Amino acid sequence: MSNMVITIGREYGSGGHEIGEKLAKALGFTFYDKELLTMVAEKSGITEQVLQKADETASNPLFAPYYPPSIDPGSLNDRVFRMQSDLIKEKAEKENCVIVGRCANYVLDDRDNVIRVFIYADIEKRINRIMSRHGIVDRDVAVKLIKKTDKQRRSYYQFYSEMKWGRIEGQDILINSGLLGIDGTVALLKTLVEEKMGK
Amino acid sequence: MSNMVITIGREYGSGGHEIGEKLAKALGFTFYDKELLTMVAEKSGITEQVLQKADETASNPLFAPYYPPSIDPGSLNDRVFRMQSDLIKEKAEKENCVIVGRCANYVLDDRDNVIRVFIYADIEKRINRIMSRHGIVDRDVAVKLIKKTDKQRRSYYQFYSEMKWGRIEGQDILINSGLLGIDGTVALLKTLVEEKMGK
Repeated sequence: MSNMVITIGREYGSGGHEIGEKLAKALGFTFYDKELLTMVAEKSGITEQVLQKADETASNPLFAPYYPPSIDPGSLNDRVFRMQSDLIKEKAEKENCVIVGRCANYVLDDRDNVIRVFIYADIEKRINRIMSRHGIVDRDVAVKLIKKTDKQRRSYYQFYSEMKWGRIEGQDILINSGLLGIDGTVALLKTLVEEKMGK
Repeated sequence: MSNMVITIGREYGSGGHEIGEKLAKALGFTFYDKELLTMVAEKSGITEQVLQKADETASNPLFAPYYPPSIDPGSLNDRVFRMQSDLIKEKAEKENCVIVGRCANYVLDDRDNVIRVFIYADIEKRINRIMSRHGIVDRDVAVKLIKKTDKQRRSYYQFYSEMKWGRIEGQDILINSGLLGIDGTVALLKTLVEEKMGK
């Protein structure tokens, strides 16, 4: 068996990042989320602060300058997406790793050594999680933040992958993190990965 | 821990029925699919052949006679749905069981002792499965049968549950049966159920 890559898409507040991080630790895999941005910063010489604004954000063609297609360098968003995609492909060649977000399921859709996971949760659980993690006391603030972040992730995903976000197409397994909780979900996914790797 | 109910929605040709049957056997749970129709036939005195046409099929209001709402007995489809729903609720009160189709996830959506599963698969795998199971030699025939059956299941599900078929809403876990194969999926779901039951 070759190396194995787990991609994780996630609704905001579902615990997808934490599940990915704990799963990577449990399996002894490398974990990539914002780490990919740091690497792009190092390679491109663009500061992380600037890149951050373009991370997991679809480019808006209305605000882009016009170039003939043959020489169009693309928006910063497009370039960040392409640089992250190249890094993701490079990692998927040889590393055991867990990659959160960045359309990694789509970027790696021609590969067999990939398990594509999507984490979601009931809205009430997500509100409680976001309130407690970010010390938010006003429930409405948490609701707005969830809506805004999900909208951004959905636009980004749909813009670059041309698939619908949080649907079965492009995913191997979608799981409600409320079913078994964070640690229970990590344990189940670990079983799944080990089964797939034939251990 | 009380009894546990597993509901299984499934794309046609994904192996959902076989997974449900094997999972029930592995767990020592009762299995219900067409069995629910036999029970409705016994209770209602309507023959199974007549009921079969109304099973997992949405009623078409264009062909229904008009009654004032207060005395409308509903179409045969509606009555079969209601009778099956009553049976499903009765079983979910005390039995450990696996129930395939019949919007069981929706019928039991107010209960905690339910794990709601949806099984899907890539179209090529579904075509191959349907061709080999039904001895179909013409690929196009299998494709048409899949499209027709999925359409019927989708209409039925969306008519009675008012949720979208094969989406995360209303489901706890959605899994591509091609990821681990039929037996691997059964094993993973068995682990999940045992974890949930705290064994």
